[in-house]
Amino acid sequence: MAVHFFKPATMKSFLLVILFASLPIFAQQKPVNFRINQERLEKRILDLATYGMLPNGETNRVAFSDADVAAHQFVMEMMQEAGLEVHIDAAGNLIGNRVGKKTLKPIVFGSHIDMVPHGGNYDGCVGAMGAIEVIKTLSEKNFTTDHPLQVIIFTNEEGGLVGSRAISGNLKATGLGVKNSTGFTIEEGIKRLGGNPENIASVARKQGEMAAFIELHIEQGAKLDESDIQIGIVEGIVGIKWWDVTFEGFANHAGTTAMNNRKDALLAAAKFIQAVNEVAIQTPGNHVATVGRIQALPGAPNVIPGKVVLSLEIRDLSSEKIETIFDSVEAKATEISKQSGVSVGFSPIDATSSPALTDPVIKTAIQKASERLGYTFQYMPSGAGHDAQDMALVVPTGMIFVPSKDGISHSPKEYTSPEDMANGTNVLMHNILELDKKLKN
Amino acid sequence: MAVHFFKPATMKSFLLVILFASLPIFAQQKPVNFRINQERLEKRILDLATYGMLPNGETNRVAFSDADVAAHQFVMEMMQEAGLEVHIDAAGNLIGNRVGKKTLKPIVFGSHIDMVPHGGNYDGCVGAMGAIEVIKTLSEKNFTTDHPLQVIIFTNEEGGLVGSRAISGNLKATGLGVKNSTGFTIEEGIKRLGGNPENIASVARKQGEMAAFIELHIEQGAKLDESDIQIGIVEGIVGIKWWDVTFEGFANHAGTTAMNNRKDALLAAAKFIQAVNEVAIQTPGNHVATVGRIQALPGAPNVIPGKVVLSLEIRDLSSEKIETIFDSVEAKATEISKQSGVSVGFSPIDATSSPALTDPVIKTAIQKASERLGYTFQYMPSGAGHDAQDMALVVPTGMIFVPSKDGISHSPKEYTSPEDMANGTNVLMHNILELDKKLKN
Repeated sequence: MAVHFFKPATMKSFLLVILFASLPIFAQQKPVNFRINQERLEKRILDLATYGMLPNGETNRVAFSDADVAAHQFVMEMMQEAGLEVHIDAAGNLIGNRVGKKTLKPIVFGSHIDMVPHGGNYDGCVGAMGAIEVIKTLSEKNFTTDHPLQVIIFTNEEGGLVGSRAISGNLKATGLGVKNSTGFTIEEGIKRLGGNPENIASVARKQGEMAAFIELHIEQGAKLDESDIQIGIVEGIVGIKWWDVTFEGFANHAGTTAMNNRKDALLAAAKFIQAVNEVAIQTPGNHVATVGRIQALPGAPNVIPGKVVLSLEIRDLSSEKIETIFDSVEAKATEISKQSGVSVGFSPIDATSSPALTDPVIKTAIQKASERLGYTFQYMPSGAGHDAQDMALVVPTGMIFVPSKDGISHSPKEYTSPEDMANGTNVLMHNILELDKKLKN
Repeated sequence: MAVHFFKPATMKSFLLVILFASLPIFAQQKPVNFRINQERLEKRILDLATYGMLPNGETNRVAFSDADVAAHQFVMEMMQEAGLEVHIDAAGNLIGNRVGKKTLKPIVFGSHIDMVPHGGNYDGCVGAMGAIEVIKTLSEKNFTTDHPLQVIIFTNEEGGLVGSRAISGNLKATGLGVKNSTGFTIEEGIKRLGGNPENIASVARKQGEMAAFIELHIEQGAKLDESDIQIGIVEGIVGIKWWDVTFEGFANHAGTTAMNNRKDALLAAAKFIQAVNEVAIQTPGNHVATVGRIQALPGAPNVIPGKVVLSLEIRDLSSEKIETIFDSVEAKATEISKQSGVSVGFSPIDATSSPALTDPVIKTAIQKASERLGYTFQYMPSGAGHDAQDMALVVPTGMIFVPSKDGISHSPKEYTSPEDMANGTNVLMHNILELDKKLKN
């Protein structure tokens, strides 16, 4: 029926218009339709994985290792190619800038490329490569945001959030002498990456210097993968508290000491490990509590253990919740101690971090981006620590999670599919575009 | 009234007779009235303790150490002074002989003078010094038994019953290369003590070569001390079985892995440790079951343990009882494995020993000696291993226990009072005298 409305010539002109409008060279694509290049993103990840790759195909790239130093050089060139002005700050962070149309505070995003020993190629790398892919896509589209954009590849995330802690002003000088598994101190490592540890205080940023910080990261847990949900909108990064728990009974001959005459520190510790699990499971919420390390002394098969030292870790988005759970665990420990005659003592370890909540405006923008792209999403805490937690101290911060297959992380078996990486990177880009419109500073 | 029967002169003669009869020089004391010299025994123990004594007053005398070698020289001279013909056998055992009146098999007794690291001065030493004190007392009394007597100070009891195992013919040549904490191999150590490891097979004795073996030892447990009983008559030395128990779950991020999504090997191991204790306590008897060693991997506070290896030890006088308890423990482990999704595997360790029952005739003789001396006694198993367990393979064997204060052993806090040591040594002597009369070969 429609054919009757058009003459052949008119019809031809109309088709040409349609054709031209669909060619980017002829018509500027609307930002709402921008998509990153999944194949290119996957190639970035695979190329990066070759830095530190072992004969068995696994990658070993601990911060400050030769592989880490070489990977930084590789990534710096990748950032430049994508259209960033790159420099290395005093903390060894790779900083890439892209100018905006207006004089506004920068929107900052990025992650890290260092790995735990025997780790995987997705943790950190997805967010780092995704950030560069966003810049590359915007450059290809010839699109300039109102806000300046800044990509950061943070120094040594796995060994103590070194780069982001320097930016938040919380990297203590006393910590610079700590060696990691490469044998280099943090101070030496920063120098290896081109930083200047003597001038490290200069990289600290003040509240109000940046418009926003967003980190794309793999979940490292199984929630998204198990529920088949594409995007996690992070509500906050959990606080972590650690204690050493010491049980003192009485070491004695395992052959001559009757069962009813023992003060077995390991038996008391075993009851405690179960109690920690029970308290954690019976208390509603998303917290976790873990005993990961244990030492029994003297540690011989034929001696009743007289002393046990174990670690207790509790994580939650709320510091009060951590305290509540600890109180319950402590009460159980007191009970166990009374019943067994084995003393129990708790000593807090200085490796704790406070919960870091994400910014409501950024969370809403991540949700809007996910909806626009048609991805399923859910709000969730981050159980792991991230550079974002230190950044949150000085800038409104958001985090985007993509699924980790089977929840496996810090392992060569870590995996996130190219589709999931692309989805997360698209959400990162549209979140930035959304914030660019929304934020007035 | 009696006065009327005697004239003054007769009375005087009668009194002289009484007087002479009561002086040992004039009248042979009946063996039933022999008593060892408690002060001298205590001095032997205190003198021996100076070999390896540290500035803090504790003694460190691990087998084959300089202190052990010097102590052997000291004890050899003590044996000679007591009236023994002494030689060192190929296994480094100190052997002291005293001839008997008749051509009979020797009655053998003794113990060891080496110590565990950070051990005490009573374990082994009481039996060794007691044996020499018995010989010294008989020499003083000028009393010769029908049977030849033989005292043995065994080589390196704590490091694998080396001397007694050589005598029972069970010291394997493959074991001679094992080093103890001194850094010397057993082979080197035997040489240091004057033995000849190349000729070690020559010290093995056959069933029927000896009439009896008796070892006096501290209990190393608290049964006698708690019940205030002076003498323990050992029913047998428990058999010992060891297993390595391995739990395999899945190591994962302690922050990102939800409580209900964990395969925590340490949590399963904790339940197992409790189950071992429950089975041991709920099963009637004198057995013991112990988890003394545990290792959780990877062993970091922020990683859920994926693997745990722990030791399981079960001891009892009956091998069947050990198996029954193991079966119950294994069944509990299977339950724990099903509930937790953590696999559990048992692998037997080659450090086991079979139960060694003591000889009824010797046990009765020990009871008779205790009754004669007016000491309280009880029958009991030995939960610890002793040279007697290897001797039991080639000769009817008995063991006498004396109290250990608070049951503490293998510790510098180990203590047995001079009275208790003297009581045990008197029982040893009267047991030997009783057997000397009773045994016809």
